[in-house]
Amino acid sequence: MRDCYTVHKLGQRDENSMMQHVITIQDFSRDEIDRILNRAAELEPVAHTGSSDALSGRILATLFYEPSTRTRLSFDVAMKRLGGDVIDLGAVETSSAVKGENLADTISVISGYADAIVLRHPKEGAARMASEFSSVPVINAGDGAGQHPTQTLLDLYTIRKEGKLNKAKIALVGDLKYGRTVHSLAHALSLYDAEIYLVSPDQLKMPDLMKDGLIESGTEIVETAEIDDVIDVVDVLYLTRIQKERFPDPSEYQAVVGSYKITKETLKDVKDNLIIMHPLPRLNEIDPEVDASRHAMYFRQSFYGVPVRMAILSMVIG
Amino acid sequence: MRDCYTVHKLGQRDENSMMQHVITIQDFSRDEIDRILNRAAELEPVAHTGSSDALSGRILATLFYEPSTRTRLSFDVAMKRLGGDVIDLGAVETSSAVKGENLADTISVISGYADAIVLRHPKEGAARMASEFSSVPVINAGDGAGQHPTQTLLDLYTIRKEGKLNKAKIALVGDLKYGRTVHSLAHALSLYDAEIYLVSPDQLKMPDLMKDGLIESGTEIVETAEIDDVIDVVDVLYLTRIQKERFPDPSEYQAVVGSYKITKETLKDVKDNLIIMHPLPRLNEIDPEVDASRHAMYFRQSFYGVPVRMAILSMVIG
Amino acid sequence: MRDCYTVHKLGQRDENSMMQHVITIQDFSRDEIDRILNRAAELEPVAHTGSSDALSGRILATLFYEPSTRTRLSFDVAMKRLGGDVIDLGAVETSSAVKGENLADTISVISGYADAIVLRHPKEGAARMASEFSSVPVINAGDGAGQHPTQTLLDLYTIRKEGKLNKAKIALVGDLKYGRTVHSLAHALSLYDAEIYLVSPDQLKMPDLMKDGLIESGTEIVETAEIDDVIDVVDVLYLTRIQKERFPDPSEYQAVVGSYKITKETLKDVKDNLIIMHPLPRLNEIDPEVDASRHAMYFRQSFYGVPVRMAILSMVIG
Repeated sequence: MRDCYTVHKLGQRDENSMMQHVITIQDFSRDEIDRILNRAAELEPVAHTGSSDALSGRILATLFYEPSTRTRLSFDVAMKRLGGDVIDLGAVETSSAVKGENLADTISVISGYADAIVLRHPKEGAARMASEFSSVPVINAGDGAGQHPTQTLLDLYTIRKEGKLNKAKIALVGDLKYGRTVHSLAHALSLYDAEIYLVSPDQLKMPDLMKDGLIESGTEIVETAEIDDVIDVVDVLYLTRIQKERFPDPSEYQAVVGSYKITKETLKDVKDNLIIMHPLPRLNEIDPEVDASRHAMYFRQSFYGVPVRMAILSMVIG
Repeated sequence: MRDCYTVHKLGQRDENSMMQHVITIQDFSRDEIDRILNRAAELEPVAHTGSSDALSGRILATLFYEPSTRTRLSFDVAMKRLGGDVIDLGAVETSSAVKGENLADTISVISGYADAIVLRHPKEGAARMASEFSSVPVINAGDGAGQHPTQTLLDLYTIRKEGKLNKAKIALVGDLKYGRTVHSLAHALSLYDAEIYLVSPDQLKMPDLMKDGLIESGTEIVETAEIDDVIDVVDVLYLTRIQKERFPDPSEYQAVVGSYKITKETLKDVKDNLIIMHPLPRLNEIDPEVDASRHAMYFRQSFYGVPVRMAILSMVIG
Repeated sequence: MRDCYTVHKLGQRDENSMMQHVITIQDFSRDEIDRILNRAAELEPVAHTGSSDALSGRILATLFYEPSTRTRLSFDVAMKRLGGDVIDLGAVETSSAVKGENLADTISVISGYADAIVLRHPKEGAARMASEFSSVPVINAGDGAGQHPTQTLLDLYTIRKEGKLNKAKIALVGDLKYGRTVHSLAHALSLYDAEIYLVSPDQLKMPDLMKDGLIESGTEIVETAEIDDVIDVVDVLYLTRIQKERFPDPSEYQAVVGSYKITKETLKDVKDNLIIMHPLPRLNEIDPEVDASRHAMYFRQSFYGVPVRMAILSMVIG
């Protein structure tokens, strides 16, 4: 057996591999983000139906303490397309969490098994805490109302690839109060001199603190409750789920959902190069008849999660 | 990294790779079925304890919206024995389905991640619908009361390998009303000039429409409620689960189950080359004492799911 | 396709591969245990962040009928670090077990898919029974109150590597009545001429039958309820979970847990080379402030599950 195995030398990381943990998008400079997006562009052909042995023999652990389809599966695919392998904690109710183990101990154990850990957890700050107990890189795949940095990176990649990222006019639409996706994205867009249109019902406006941060960074923001005010001027329309439980009154929810729904009709005077994005899953924000339109970019956006996560994995595991 | 990956060219499929989706057995001609069975025979040695790199770097997604052990695991094994990898949606309650996503959107997303999709879903027609939204091949692994074509193919493979397929005398026993397995199998057998004995209690007879179809195709069918009428004349005894919930009266259920149970005693005058098949899991249809008999073929039948699914995957993914 | 696959010849096993099933630690002689530990030591560099193709193309099935994190994942990692692949039955409620299939049939089916089976089951004796129906090796990963031999082997590996195994003074602390871990470990230690200190509250003392067995084998045992009596003389302190449900009176539970808890204070006069072990997950048996101490070996012990299980898999699958 002695001749047929390889022990990966630690410390043999190339220049792109300086990252340790991936916890919040705020930890990254514009240069660092650009480097990730460039690497993703290089890897995109492999993401389609290719394969690589770049991470052959390396193991990623996925720990999802909350439901997920696309985030978990796209990390899973990303690792496998790079030639690596994946171990999954599985549904929380079948793991040792039921015996009362705390997250710190679980992370200490798992970091002895794997070369990197992807963590989704309902508690804000969980990923940061996990990174302090882990001997291997931790990638935050969503921590409650907190951060979801790889979603932001794939959003940026989609905008750069399918539209324009620098000085773009972008509308963020829907739940701007609770939606972690749009908070992180708004911050990242401020690095690229975007003009940001905040479109939400009164109950779901972006928190003042966050708006102040954007303004301080020199970002132009425009706030409105009417999607019609912005739809014909923007380059990117970024929609988010509006959740029923945010509204005390069901009829109020129905009214809001109705007025924000994108249909073929809504799109009749938009810019030629408008792209429509959505982190998915959607509820009723986009009529399925829009799917065939050249503006619809949400399924491609979902696919871009693969090359972007391949880029992150290749830079983190090295 | 540039040198160490491979991008699989689409369109480089060999002559056996003309299949796109695998939805119902009715979509296949006898020639096409024979070609699949021949490929399975070639791959059977690899299915035992071998390995291949035929699908190296390719990824299969398995989506099971209903419980399954053997179908899911045998696809999983089949893909891995061919050198490919698998991503699994997992239990439905831990996926985005809980956030209200519909099947069409899930399929659109997953088909951006994987090179083929295996789908089991409780709704009849789900696989056909999924195939319309998928950019990669969809393989139906059971859609409610509908179809389960890979089960039929492994049944045919077992009959061809362990008995005789052409002009065989075959008894289909048990629940012929609701059992999707026997419906698809009966159709497929009609392509091979089988004589079919339909053995079921009155409550669970094969629907007339289906019988008419068999007769029209020139298949000889004999109907009876007594297993004793046929057991000594047939080459294949194909048993199915009889489910309690089909009977309003529990005592009636007990009586039926008792009269259809296969024991050593039942088998004392059967043909030498009789093979006993069952799609499994069994309840009480076969006494475990029969397992050691030379007639018992149900565990081998289950194993044959591996080479047959390897054949399908290799032809679909190419 | 004919040229690109490999069919592993059965019977090409090397001298280390004489094992068939791994059911109880009692089935192994000291020589056989030493051979497993030696193989684990060889494989430890690969377990860290390496890879091997020793089991390339081979498939392990994991069947966990009870919750597990570390045992399942460490087998998963072990198989993948050796280049093999894994199929997992998944949560019991999503498998055919819900259709009423018995364990014997499930094993008969799975052993047609995989090259070895890892089984955890709530019923004592389940693994032995499974081995009788399996055509491939079965590894017991815990059967109720019964056995968990791979845990014992990794415990022995940790003691040998981080302390001393031969003629060691070892305290087993906590629930010595129900804890399967300590029962198997005590037996194994008796093969290495250990002096064993049994430290437990009165309600949770080791059963007499088991103590008699140790004494008959020539092992010195000392029994006490006070951890203070032994902590300064032992080389190994092996702690176990004390479960609330063992105590009719909650206040009694609190008192016991309090008196057995290890803190920095507890450790002030211990031997320099003392190692503290725990099978994990821990509840309150060890204060987290102890984690940074040079005595704390429980997370490393958990990691050693990987090389030990790699050794077992490589010897069983061959």
